Amino acid sequence: MAKLITDDNHSELLKKFNASLLFDKELYAQDIKGSIAHANMLCSQNIINDDEYSQIKKGLLQIKNEIEKGVFNFTLEDEDIHMAIESRLIDIIGDSGKKLHTARSRNDQVALDFRMYCLEKQDEISLLLKDLIGSLLEISSKHTDTLLPGMTHLQHAQPINFSFHLLAYASMFKRDVDRCVSSNKRNNISPIGCAALAGTGYEIDREKTAKELGFDSISINCLDTVSDRDFALELLFNISTMAMHISRLCEELVNWSSYEFGFIKISDEFSTGSSIMPQKRNPDIPELLRAKTGRVNGNLLGLLTVMKSLPLAYNKDTQEDKEGVFDSVKTALSSLEILNALMNNITINKDKMKEATKIGHLSSTDLADFLVNSDNLAFRDAYHIIKKVVQYAEDKNIDVSQMSLEQLREVYPDMKKEALEYLSLEASMNRRVSKGGTATKECEEQIKYFKNWLKDS
Amino acid sequence: MAKLITDDNHSELLKKFNASLLFDKELYAQDIKGSIAHANMLCSQNIINDDEYSQIKKGLLQIKNEIEKGVFNFTLEDEDIHMAIESRLIDIIGDSGKKLHTARSRNDQVALDFRMYCLEKQDEISLLLKDLIGSLLEISSKHTDTLLPGMTHLQHAQPINFSFHLLAYASMFKRDVDRCVSSNKRNNISPIGCAALAGTGYEIDREKTAKELGFDSISINCLDTVSDRDFALELLFNISTMAMHISRLCEELVNWSSYEFGFIKISDEFSTGSSIMPQKRNPDIPELLRAKTGRVNGNLLGLLTVMKSLPLAYNKDTQEDKEGVFDSVKTALSSLEILNALMNNITINKDKMKEATKIGHLSSTDLADFLVNSDNLAFRDAYHIIKKVVQYAEDKNIDVSQMSLEQLREVYPDMKKEALEYLSLEASMNRRVSKGGTATKECEEQIKYFKNWLKDS
Amino acid sequence: MAKLITDDNHSELLKKFNASLLFDKELYAQDIKGSIAHANMLCSQNIINDDEYSQIKKGLLQIKNEIEKGVFNFTLEDEDIHMAIESRLIDIIGDSGKKLHTARSRNDQVALDFRMYCLEKQDEISLLLKDLIGSLLEISSKHTDTLLPGMTHLQHAQPINFSFHLLAYASMFKRDVDRCVSSNKRNNISPIGCAALAGTGYEIDREKTAKELGFDSISINCLDTVSDRDFALELLFNISTMAMHISRLCEELVNWSSYEFGFIKISDEFSTGSSIMPQKRNPDIPELLRAKTGRVNGNLLGLLTVMKSLPLAYNKDTQEDKEGVFDSVKTALSSLEILNALMNNITINKDKMKEATKIGHLSSTDLADFLVNSDNLAFRDAYHIIKKVVQYAEDKNIDVSQMSLEQLREVYPDMKKEALEYLSLEASMNRRVSKGGTATKECEEQIKYFKNWLKDS
Amino acid sequence: MAKLITDDNHSELLKKFNASLLFDKELYAQDIKGSIAHANMLCSQNIINDDEYSQIKKGLLQIKNEIEKGVFNFTLEDEDIHMAIESRLIDIIGDSGKKLHTARSRNDQVALDFRMYCLEKQDEISLLLKDLIGSLLEISSKHTDTLLPGMTHLQHAQPINFSFHLLAYASMFKRDVDRCVSSNKRNNISPIGCAALAGTGYEIDREKTAKELGFDSISINCLDTVSDRDFALELLFNISTMAMHISRLCEELVNWSSYEFGFIKISDEFSTGSSIMPQKRNPDIPELLRAKTGRVNGNLLGLLTVMKSLPLAYNKDTQEDKEGVFDSVKTALSSLEILNALMNNITINKDKMKEATKIGHLSSTDLADFLVNSDNLAFRDAYHIIKKVVQYAEDKNIDVSQMSLEQLREVYPDMKKEALEYLSLEASMNRRVSKGGTATKECEEQIKYFKNWLKDS
Repeated sequence: MAKLITDDNHSELLKKFNASLLFDKELYAQDIKGSIAHANMLCSQNIINDDEYSQIKKGLLQIKNEIEKGVFNFTLEDEDIHMAIESRLIDIIGDSGKKLHTARSRNDQVALDFRMYCLEKQDEISLLLKDLIGSLLEISSKHTDTLLPGMTHLQHAQPINFSFHLLAYASMFKRDVDRCVSSNKRNNISPIGCAALAGTGYEIDREKTAKELGFDSISINCLDTVSDRDFALELLFNISTMAMHISRLCEELVNWSSYEFGFIKISDEFSTGSSIMPQKRNPDIPELLRAKTGRVNGNLLGLLTVMKSLPLAYNKDTQEDKEGVFDSVKTALSSLEILNALMNNITINKDKMKEATKIGHLSSTDLADFLVNSDNLAFRDAYHIIKKVVQYAEDKNIDVSQMSLEQLREVYPDMKKEALEYLSLEASMNRRVSKGGTATKECEEQIKYFKNWLKDS
Repeated sequence: MAKLITDDNHSELLKKFNASLLFDKELYAQDIKGSIAHANMLCSQNIINDDEYSQIKKGLLQIKNEIEKGVFNFTLEDEDIHMAIESRLIDIIGDSGKKLHTARSRNDQVALDFRMYCLEKQDEISLLLKDLIGSLLEISSKHTDTLLPGMTHLQHAQPINFSFHLLAYASMFKRDVDRCVSSNKRNNISPIGCAALAGTGYEIDREKTAKELGFDSISINCLDTVSDRDFALELLFNISTMAMHISRLCEELVNWSSYEFGFIKISDEFSTGSSIMPQKRNPDIPELLRAKTGRVNGNLLGLLTVMKSLPLAYNKDTQEDKEGVFDSVKTALSSLEILNALMNNITINKDKMKEATKIGHLSSTDLADFLVNSDNLAFRDAYHIIKKVVQYAEDKNIDVSQMSLEQLREVYPDMKKEALEYLSLEASMNRRVSKGGTATKECEEQIKYFKNWLKDS
Repeated sequence: MAKLITDDNHSELLKKFNASLLFDKELYAQDIKGSIAHANMLCSQNIINDDEYSQIKKGLLQIKNEIEKGVFNFTLEDEDIHMAIESRLIDIIGDSGKKLHTARSRNDQVALDFRMYCLEKQDEISLLLKDLIGSLLEISSKHTDTLLPGMTHLQHAQPINFSFHLLAYASMFKRDVDRCVSSNKRNNISPIGCAALAGTGYEIDREKTAKELGFDSISINCLDTVSDRDFALELLFNISTMAMHISRLCEELVNWSSYEFGFIKISDEFSTGSSIMPQKRNPDIPELLRAKTGRVNGNLLGLLTVMKSLPLAYNKDTQEDKEGVFDSVKTALSSLEILNALMNNITINKDKMKEATKIGHLSSTDLADFLVNSDNLAFRDAYHIIKKVVQYAEDKNIDVSQMSLEQLREVYPDMKKEALEYLSLEASMNRRVSKGGTATKECEEQIKYFKNWLKDS
Repeated sequence: MAKLITDDNHSELLKKFNASLLFDKELYAQDIKGSIAHANMLCSQNIINDDEYSQIKKGLLQIKNEIEKGVFNFTLEDEDIHMAIESRLIDIIGDSGKKLHTARSRNDQVALDFRMYCLEKQDEISLLLKDLIGSLLEISSKHTDTLLPGMTHLQHAQPINFSFHLLAYASMFKRDVDRCVSSNKRNNISPIGCAALAGTGYEIDREKTAKELGFDSISINCLDTVSDRDFALELLFNISTMAMHISRLCEELVNWSSYEFGFIKISDEFSTGSSIMPQKRNPDIPELLRAKTGRVNGNLLGLLTVMKSLPLAYNKDTQEDKEGVFDSVKTALSSLEILNALMNNITINKDKMKEATKIGHLSSTDLADFLVNSDNLAFRDAYHIIKKVVQYAEDKNIDVSQMSLEQLREVYPDMKKEALEYLSLEASMNRRVSKGGTATKECEEQIKYFKNWLKDS
């Protein structure tokens, strides 16, 4: 089946292998925008004249239109999107088109287009993250007193409320936004004007082009600029961290929708069935979302690997930067939209959640804290007394929250009767009023904090 | 630009997110082959009748034809290739088509199709690797006396020949073949008949289906089988290791075609120019080949990450196994074809290679070995004498290989005149006759070894 | 706090950065074994004499003893374990010691020692894997009729037994053994005698040394041999795949020991408490085991990255191969021992498992299969009828396995009374007698298969 | 060799497997600092009294002293550094020591200590990066007119100067600093006071503790806080990106110190020899630095993998966060110190660099630019004319920079005589005066920019 490449067939294969057009056409809008700004600068520097500029601009806008209408003829002969657009431009406007490439190089075009793409997409990701946080806050605000067993090690630990749990994810996604914003600020630097690697002798005005394209400033050293892909690595890392957060939430959704937990029900639309088990309702969507960590981590690692040990300046290796970034971006955008919709399509079973808090002696820490105060014990000593209380309850097959004063005193004869107030699960939850704690009123504060942040950002 | 999903638009998005059809249609041939074998078994077990079987077979072959002719109507409603084919089958042959899914599940269909794909592709990779080795041997056999500086740390070390250098890569690629063959042997086990996870109550004959599909045996435990992706991980790892080998060869091609080395010239067809530097001839192809390590390592890591911590048996996470594998497979196949063609399109500059051996005092080890024998010195002592000889040569700005007896004796008065024979670079290369060594006749043995292996395998 | 390196302090830092002795001393036994075999060969080839050989051997054995007693003086001046041993040898036996390094190089010593280490450790891993499989079989043989809900997507799917579930892991670990055995077979090839990169002019006998060291054969090309690390990559990959399997089992142990599942209880010794929640019993051990995937995947990826694009032959980069391998090996060995002990320290709650099978309508597939047979329906049609049965049961808040004939007929009036036999969960489990299925007798066959394999391997 | 764990030996193994003390003792200083601040806050909130606080503080400082003097008795019974310190505290000061753990949990201690460690180390890394940039600037300022062939694809492209090349690395390392600073700013948030997962009922003052420890603010949600490891991931990513930059510079150092390039000579102290080739001088240090990418990428990926899919809040998996971070931090710190020293230990061969610029027709772009201006040609047209000039030069075996006017006119009869000015390599370099370009005066501007930044930051 496999056979040696012959002279007859390897040219075709080679062309396809070498070309980036099949994927970098994704950058057509950035390329055209960049070219117009470049031409405008060339014109105001008198490197081309007004007429040439207006022809170039018109031609480029026509090409944009052709691409968006699907009538542009992409051919592998053109190798990449930059050549494809330039050769079409020359087709349309003739010799003036040839002047566009004055004082620039494909290397800095690539650097420009790809950077603009990353900046734009990172902004879109931020917006979708904020939408998601908004949804979490909305759900959250309805559940500030919905009791739930707070867990560590997947073991019941202390009573919390469902709002508090969702706010943990709001915190994570806020950090994801902060990272995106910070990356974009750091990388909002124009590469255009670096030419092949060393700058140019034409009297260009890099600041002008940068400003027209919305950049904050221009890059400092051209040799670095044409081979810098840090901005893409940051984007990939930010997506990987975000995907990790999503995987954690989705793991919980899968757990919660199992028969064993029963805390939530995912709507039919977001579940799927089995081809042979008619009773099945599978949480396919959170599973898929969870699994996306694999590909985005792979993309991050891929680019780190590609960049390793590359001498300056541009090397063709760098062409391998795009597909992974495109894939991670698409994954991020669709994951966020889907997760947002999913969160709005789950039914929360408050009774099941509450029922579950009655298992696992969740008042134990409270009772220990009570002893510290009431009997002036060191926490470590109170801890050991309560450990015996727990043992007593387990032997009786009851939960500590259900114990009577008599039962408590069988273990610790000095137990004061106020101890009983510390057995209530709801009271326990509401006792945790320290900043960032789970008490209802503290959760309301947290919701307010996030809402203000959303409004201001 | 980003906006909250509304009820109106999220269904479409969701369907696309959940469906695998867009990529798993790559498995249509395997799916149809597997279904025919399954139906044949059902028939011989009297679960369906002859007529039903022949209708099913005919229908499936018609579908195969439709797909290959490009007239098959893929629709996302069908979610995956298995449903797409089955619902089309029912369209064509009616109720008999519904019987195909008796005693099987989508889970074991997925397991079967994907395993068959991996086995077949790994065979193709092996074949292309052998083709490549064949090319290396051919070139190699013309250069068993083409002197070249053998390097460690990119520093000239000892004189070798170009054949010897290429044979190192033949050795690596042979190991890659060995790994592929070994993986395929280990994984040539039929999953079909495992149903959803627990086997079936129908009286099926798994051995029969397995045999018809060319498997060596059947899997032992169904719960494992439907969630096993070890075979895919092995394929991804084998490709990553192979890509690493390719990256090493291509790094050398890039080095060798630089002005500084000048050892080879890559043909025009395999080089590319610059958009602003008319004199450039860039080794784009080896650079791209080298960079492919990034994506294939990413794919390997991606699947390892996806599989982490998945409870038994099937989880939707596993749907993320395919795109990475398809990408690595395509990368492997095209890389091998391109590299093979590339190797046949380089011109070797024997003079430059030979010239280079005269730099770096490459006869030094030989001279040390000579002293060990002639003066019965310990190697460690001889080493220190020759270190002084090298220093002498450096001071005189000559190469040790060019030194006269007098000069040698200025450093080491007892130097015997036979020492001069040990200065010759060609003699040095040919002295290394130990098994696996660089001597011309030893290289010829190595070529013979690989040719025999190619013939026998 | 950080300061510029001055001439005074950077030498020390540099020495430490460059040296590998701090970690490669782990290879002392392999180095000494290799050196003795090398000296023996030199002696039988008359390159050194009998007396020299016996001195060398005696000296090396003394050094081994010193290292194992902890009295060997390791100093960074020696840079690596090879130099440390050699210089100590010269200390002890004088000039004869200097002859040991005849006809070899540090490069092939490194290649030899590290390969021997990897082969040995991979054998140890295989043995521990078999021990673990043995434990799983032992537990498994007690639970061939312990009903458990078989799950897909963490949703109850079909009734299986606990033996069947454990046997899935036995299957995975068997594949891990197979991979280790296959790797060791492929890589059991002696590198020694390759010298620096090109072989040697001494009349050495590589086969003799290889045979003495237990290798099957010698390597084919020296340039390749001194820079080949495929054997280490294979070991790292095999460990990563094994760690992934372990992570899956441990995820299940964590799930099963939660209050929600309650299927198992991990013994006190393998659980830990909380510093403030006296009632906690956390599954720390399976969590840690699960998390080990991170580091071993990191090590695999690390070495793949190190090797990328290295020109031939040896480069110092390769020194970075060892710490990751040592870490993965240690992780693998301890993980296997701990997991084995853990499996023997869980209590299985058969009642809870059985109780759980009554949730989720696990007889549904059986009932569909029954209709296919009894009413000669296509499976697809039966499926839709049973879907309605499930809906009926859900509405009544009962499980399909508890339905009466009357209730069944309310949905499907033609339901034959034999249908009731298909509702039993135990019968359902035992009906899956196809090869690899969950029926008790089929599980017994699987146990027999694995026991035979253990005995024979 | 491997054997089943028996009851007798597995406890020991288990203790070691479970404990983190062997590595987390690295955090002793942070733990003690955090505890003192916590105790101080407890005191000012009247949860403990002045006497208790002063005892606790004194005891903790004594422990710090014991650890730093090496007299502290670490025992695995204590499991982790937090317990080790606390139990020693109780030894020393008795019951008051037990009160330290009031209103906090090990979970938030871990979160605090590890975060403080990461923040501090990231600051150290920033400082070392700035030191390195300082060195680069110093070298750079001596070479603003040292001609060097600027390369793309390892092919000579345009004449640049050595200063310009080094400034590209200064740019990269500046971005690395920026990332570190930005991460530290974002993550300078106190976790302490979150207790196990839900906050506490004690009337603590989180802001006070935060302020005492130098944090900017406190975390928003406790459930998130105890399981957040984003700050560690950011540190790992920042190190990976920095290591990638180092690998690029070191690849160039290896290339430049080869016989073929000969651009630099690495001092003896930073090179190493061969055990059998007395003439060798190997660039071991840059090779090792280059290879460090492997382990740091592995560590990044490892933690991303560990965190995947973990349900809230703390899970023992997270214990696997530390060793990788410690390793990457140590690698980063030593790499930066070593690289800095290395850069100050290379001799630059200006003649060789200059000689090399005469190969590869590096004035070609200039000549094309000249034609654009002189003859008002489109760049694309000029490009094709110069391509012919290059061909002419190659045929004559000369470099374009050496061509006479007559020769130029043989290819392009209209060539004006001013063209000759465009052939000079030095003039070519100095013509690139656009911002960020390679012209000497532009490089001086860049040096000034970086010096100012260093001064201000």
